[in-house]
Formats: sequence, C-alpha cells, structure tokens
Amino acid sequence: MLYPWFRYPQPPRMPLRPVVKMLSVGAVAVFGVKCLCWLLDRRRSQVLLKEVLFFPTTVTCVEHLFASRRDLPFSCPCSLPHGLETSFTKLLRHLLSAKSSLDLCVFAFSNQDLSHTVLLLQSRGVTVRILTDKDYMLISGSQIGTLRRAGICVRHEMGAVHMHHKFAVVDGRLLITGSLNWTLTAIQSNRENILVTEEPDLVRPFVREFQQLWEANNPAHYLSSMLPKCVHT
Amino acid sequence: MLYPWFRYPQPPRMPLRPVVKMLSVGAVAVFGVKCLCWLLDRRRSQVLLKEVLFFPTTVTCVEHLFASRRDLPFSCPCSLPHGLETSFTKLLRHLLSAKSSLDLCVFAFSNQDLSHTVLLLQSRGVTVRILTDKDYMLISGSQIGTLRRAGICVRHEMGAVHMHHKFAVVDGRLLITGSLNWTLTAIQSNRENILVTEEPDLVRPFVREFQQLWEANNPAHYLSSMLPKCVHT
Repeated sequence: MLYPWFRYPQPPRMPLRPVVKMLSVGAVAVFGVKCLCWLLDRRRSQVLLKEVLFFPTTVTCVEHLFASRRDLPFSCPCSLPHGLETSFTKLLRHLLSAKSSLDLCVFAFSNQDLSHTVLLLQSRGVTVRILTDKDYMLISGSQIGTLRRAGICVRHEMGAVHMHHKFAVVDGRLLITGSLNWTLTAIQSNRENILVTEEPDLVRPFVREFQQLWEANNPAHYLSSMLPKCVHT
Repeated sequence: MLYPWFRYPQPPRMPLRPVVKMLSVGAVAVFGVKCLCWLLDRRRSQVLLKEVLFFPTTVTCVEHLFASRRDLPFSCPCSLPHGLETSFTKLLRHLLSAKSSLDLCVFAFSNQDLSHTVLLLQSRGVTVRILTDKDYMLISGSQIGTLRRAGICVRHEMGAVHMHHKFAVVDGRLLITGSLNWTLTAIQSNRENILVTEEPDLVRPFVREFQQLWEANNPAHYLSSMLPKCVHT
C-alpha cells in the first residue's frame, strides 16, 4: 500500500550541533595550516635577495675583502680610500660568498680585482666555469689567459657573432646580471647596472642557459668537426 | 583583627568560559584577517611578471604587432615566417603595452623595428624619453636622429666614458633590462639576455636612476657651462 510522502516514518535526525562543530574545527585547522604555509613562503620571498647596483663607483681599496681570517686585523698601506662600501665592493662580496660553484658568462674580462676574486674562489675549492667571447678573450689586458693558466675551465662561444652575456650564477642560487662587463672602464667610468637576485623564477633560466651554452661549446664537439674526415671507399 | 589569608572572603569569580570564548574568537578573527592580507599580497606577488628572454632569435615577421584594429585580420606578404612567438616579439609586445610612458636608456639603438615601435608609441600619445650614449648615437645606422626628428625627446650622457645601460621602464611599472643593445646584430646574431619584471624592489632603482640621469643631462645645464663667461672687472 502506498502512503503520501509525509506519512512515511522519518529516520532519526542526526544531531546538527556536533556536526557543525566538527566541520568548523576542521575548516579552521585547514585554514590555519594553509595560512602558515603562506606565511612561511612569504617570509622566504621577503628574505630572498633583490638588489640593484649602479656604476661607475668611487675607486676604493678592496684588499681587505681578499684577506683571510689569519690576516685580521687587516691594514693596507695603499693611498686609496679604505672601508667604503661601494657597488664594486658589494659585487665582490656577492662573488666571494660562493661556497661550491661560480658559473661566469662574460663578454669582456680584464679587471684584475675580479680576476683575483675568481682565483681566490678556485683556491678555496669553488668550481669555477667561465664562458666567454672568442674575440674579446684575446684582446690586450684580457684576464682569460691568466685564469686558464691557473687551471680554471674556460670555454668560448662558437655559434654566435658575439657572446655578449654578462652574468654570473653563484652556487646555482644567486644571479648577478646586467650591462656590466668585467673591465676597469665599466666599473670606474661607464654608466652601468647589475641586478643581484635569488628569485628562483629569474635564476633558473640563467642556470639553464649557462648549462646549454657550456655543453654546446664543449671543445670536443667543434674540434672533432674541424679534423680532416677519412674518406671510406 | 587579622585573619589568615585563606579566611578572607573571596571576591566573586569571573566566569571563565565566556572570557576564553571571546578571546578565542578575537584571536581567530585577527589571525584570519592577517592571513587574508598575506594571501592577497602573495597573489599580487605571484601575478607580478618575471620573465627572462634569450637571444639570438629566429627572424620572423613582426608587422602584425604594429597593425591597428582596423587593419585586422592582418596579412603580410613578406617571405619571413609568420605567427611565431620569439624573444623579440615578446620584447616588442612588452614595449607596445605602454599606456602612458616609456623611459629608454640605451647605449646603441639602430634596430628599425624597435625604432618603429617607439614611433608608434609616440603616435599613440605615450611620453617617450630616450637617454643614450654621446658617441654611439652618431654611428652609421643609429636611429637616434630619426627619433629626434620625429619629436621624441632625446638626451645623451655627458658625465661618463660610455652610457652603457640597456634598460627601459614601461609606465613606471615594468622593467626591461639586460645585455641587449637595440641593434640588429644583438637581436639576430649575439648571445644576449633581457630580464622583464614588475617586481617593485627591482623597478624602483631603475626609475630613480633614469630620473637622475635625465636631470643631470639636461642640455640647459651643460650648454650654459659651455658658453663663454663674461668677465666682470
């Protein structure tokens, strides 16, 4: 026999308050965890270095940056101003912060302080790789020969008119890029900029670009293609 | 008469549960609002453009980027590949996104597509200011003369060996900076990079640098110093 719907026996109703309470506590917990994640992410993003340095800079003594702990307190007898923080000393500090690797992709490299920095990093066990321009590596005053003779691995670009990049990646995490070639004129006389950042979205493409150029300019590839080919008949 | 402490009549105790409840609700509300702010900030930071473009690029037709709405659908009869998105088309799109201003600080400017872009922006009412190098503005193929004759305000750096910057600021909010000069060789033949970002911590210093150089290289300053001085006796 069929009854109208309202005459069917109703199932016992589930008590509402504990369910609402449980759901609220759950929602608050999920929201809290999400917020904590956002907070941690935000904190991370805030502490990521983002710095812009402009040149030319005042010429100052930078010898104290190369001094080892046993040389401290360090005093230099030269006549340049001492103890000033400039765009150049900041650049050197960023480079000297390298612990494991320095990948350097630079068009012109003739600055002796920067050369000293690279040699110092190598002596500390930092893996240094330099990719440079095939023409500018040969100009008078270039430091590329000195660095090569010191055992630093250098490759030069073969597939472009000029390898005009001017960037460095420190420990795969810190990007230094801009208009600045590693020359004395650029640092002391030109209007130049460099941008220093740990922002992963900006660092990653440069890490990939370096790796790609490094592989593409492996001498093993282009030297083998320059060897006379055997003609098998 | 003195009683021991435990015999003093106790004041009526404040009911604990409503107070705890009120404090909890307050704490949750404050936490919620803070989280909402972080969330909005984070969302803002995520949508801020951060892009890296590498060169050289494939040479493609870019005429469609300059076409006005009434020219659509646009078809170009040239023999270059059409419809490809390259680093260069992306660069042009970023520049063409300017609504109010383009501040350009560039060492060498000889690329005709970029010159066309700048002229197009000017015709749309965008305020264009160009700061360039005093020697490179005069080289063969430089677009600086053309732009100047079209009424664009150009100044050249007088206080440095070279004005070697290569950056542009679009509407005071978008920074385009890197190794790339605005030349055909740079775009089609060299290894180059540009970094495009809306990150305020990176944009602001470039806005300040441009403004400072623009003021410092106002012709009114150095022309007056070049005029013969009257000798008052």
